[in-house]
Amino acid sequence: MNILVMNCGSSSLKFQLIDAQTEELTAKGLCERIGIDGSRITFSAAGHKKWSRQVPMDNHREAVRLVLDALTDRGTGVVRDLSMIGAVGHRIVHGGEAFSKACLITKEVKEAIAACSDLAPLHNPANLIGVEACEALLPGVPMVAVFDTAFHQTLPEEAYLYAIPYRYYEQYKIRKYGFHGTSHDYVSHRAAQLLGKPYDTLKIIVCHLGNGASVSAVKYGKCVDTSMGMTPLEGLAMGTRSGDLDPSILEFIANKEGKSIGEIINILNKESGVLGVSGGFSSDFRDLESGLAEGARALGVFALRTAKYIGAYVAAMNGVDAICFTAGVGENSAFMRDKICNTYLGYLGITLDEEANHKRGEEIVITTPESRTKVFVIPTNEELAIARQTYALVK
Amino acid sequence: MNILVMNCGSSSLKFQLIDAQTEELTAKGLCERIGIDGSRITFSAAGHKKWSRQVPMDNHREAVRLVLDALTDRGTGVVRDLSMIGAVGHRIVHGGEAFSKACLITKEVKEAIAACSDLAPLHNPANLIGVEACEALLPGVPMVAVFDTAFHQTLPEEAYLYAIPYRYYEQYKIRKYGFHGTSHDYVSHRAAQLLGKPYDTLKIIVCHLGNGASVSAVKYGKCVDTSMGMTPLEGLAMGTRSGDLDPSILEFIANKEGKSIGEIINILNKESGVLGVSGGFSSDFRDLESGLAEGARALGVFALRTAKYIGAYVAAMNGVDAICFTAGVGENSAFMRDKICNTYLGYLGITLDEEANHKRGEEIVITTPESRTKVFVIPTNEELAIARQTYALVK
Repeated sequence: MNILVMNCGSSSLKFQLIDAQTEELTAKGLCERIGIDGSRITFSAAGHKKWSRQVPMDNHREAVRLVLDALTDRGTGVVRDLSMIGAVGHRIVHGGEAFSKACLITKEVKEAIAACSDLAPLHNPANLIGVEACEALLPGVPMVAVFDTAFHQTLPEEAYLYAIPYRYYEQYKIRKYGFHGTSHDYVSHRAAQLLGKPYDTLKIIVCHLGNGASVSAVKYGKCVDTSMGMTPLEGLAMGTRSGDLDPSILEFIANKEGKSIGEIINILNKESGVLGVSGGFSSDFRDLESGLAEGARALGVFALRTAKYIGAYVAAMNGVDAICFTAGVGENSAFMRDKICNTYLGYLGITLDEEANHKRGEEIVITTPESRTKVFVIPTNEELAIARQTYALVK
Repeated sequence: MNILVMNCGSSSLKFQLIDAQTEELTAKGLCERIGIDGSRITFSAAGHKKWSRQVPMDNHREAVRLVLDALTDRGTGVVRDLSMIGAVGHRIVHGGEAFSKACLITKEVKEAIAACSDLAPLHNPANLIGVEACEALLPGVPMVAVFDTAFHQTLPEEAYLYAIPYRYYEQYKIRKYGFHGTSHDYVSHRAAQLLGKPYDTLKIIVCHLGNGASVSAVKYGKCVDTSMGMTPLEGLAMGTRSGDLDPSILEFIANKEGKSIGEIINILNKESGVLGVSGGFSSDFRDLESGLAEGARALGVFALRTAKYIGAYVAAMNGVDAICFTAGVGENSAFMRDKICNTYLGYLGITLDEEANHKRGEEIVITTPESRTKVFVIPTNEELAIARQTYALVK
């Protein structure tokens, strides 16, 4: 069965068509600048030349129609007709406390997703627009919602509660939710397979280090802590997000610069992280690793912050069997993995295999056989995970 | 030499008179509600009955005069006259980047303390008022400033920088400073003495758990990380302070409740922490440990947060030799020490000696002889530390 995996943003749409039985990627692409001048679709498929063209797209339904046309095109398409799309799996950012796993989308599910929009005002409404565009153009095809937050719904109360008045949790559901759940789920399961041990007997830490970055602690098959919070702003130093900071800094900057709280949160989301620490130099680790002092400064902050989260989660689980690096930086920066493991994690009995650490693009153990704690690089595949969860619900 | 140790708040003044040679406490007391109706002085001295009386105090100078009168009173006093006070040690909250150790107070020092008021608007001005009141009433007596932040000035850049635009550090000195430095300094040095090893060969974690609470990491004699930040709001869940939280929560509450950022910061300082998590039940651990569900919820959050900071600092130092508990909760809550060590820190090879853990009020090792990492209870004594630093500068 072909599963169409959809990830809709407010003005973009990423998609993959995946064969659920073989788990092969049949086609993928994206639509950009939906509803804005200069809309563009890019499409690539096995055995075909990748193409991209500017086409007006006034809304997400027009974008979805262009995707379906491309998939079924007699010349460059990959399926005969729309009946060959068995199901659609939608990435939904925020499931609040309502969703602890993926589910078939019904009217009630859409209402519950809309009810979480409060917590993800930029993402959930866009995700829902994508769902409704697909429903309109693929009538009768089952739709599945796969939530970024669902994997973390197993967090115990002591991990998800903030130390603020309890009424804020009761009234507004202010708590830690966590994100990148599909990736943490996928990678932690792969680690258990590579270790050859049952998932529910292991203590695993997953470091999803991309432009957005988060760490999670998976103990005996359940996520027990994660670094992102009510929103993806909390936790690690990221590409452009600040992660943790003294909350008083918001008031301090507001008073110094006459900024509103919304303006400051915007700076913390878009001008901070390693981009901010490097004095605006770059959020790209390839630039930061080029040797300039500004880059080194940002890498130092990033490495220490990540190592401290790993250390914190070793304590939260009272031990660790394996640490996994994934996503852009986690998969590609041998330098950063080396810095984190060698500078900070020797006490876990970790000894890196330098040669393995410098390999690229594959699932690999990067510690020596004697290393007391195993460290893996496991390329994440959120779309495949979404396709699997979708298939499991519709097959 | 008698050292008068002064700790001035905006409407209060705490003092101790300490014999610098014998390190004995000669007298202590406090003035409350200075400049407010119902001002009161309380005084106790070795060999005398503790007394307290309501006396008008319009300002700090009047309060200091009452303290000096009490110390030299023919009936209940402890010194013959003011010439027997050899020096005054003042606790100063914020030394910014200007002070990495205690120093004799000069005109320039006072200006530099005033320049840091930006970073501690409630504390530094009050501290300075206390200095000037003492200067007026004890002319010619050397005054020493002992800073809460000084001990943490050894933090490396990667630990003190926030992941925000670097210009905020350059322009406004927004960075992590840390507090309770006098206590972390005192306790970590005591731990080294108790271990019988040179201070600069050890990795020590100090958990100062009082109504305000902070953890620090002291590696080879230098503080390399600490949980409080630019202000004392960051870090652990405290009595009434939130510690770390997703910065987006400030904007969320502002939008939901139409509150200003100042109002929200006030809630995070005064209605949060274990008081907030317990639904307003109590910030006192004796209440929280009484068995109610609300209390247990708050203790759970407090314990996990503290354990995660300990774990994070083990990573920051790549190992740990000793963990120390101090201050109100750290010294008195056997329950909390047990919960932190037994639930979370077994991986450090810690085995608690349950009997030792239940002793009260003394410096003690609470781990068994086999424990790989030693855990201490070390009652803090910030006033003695201030007296020592003062004496060292004036003798």
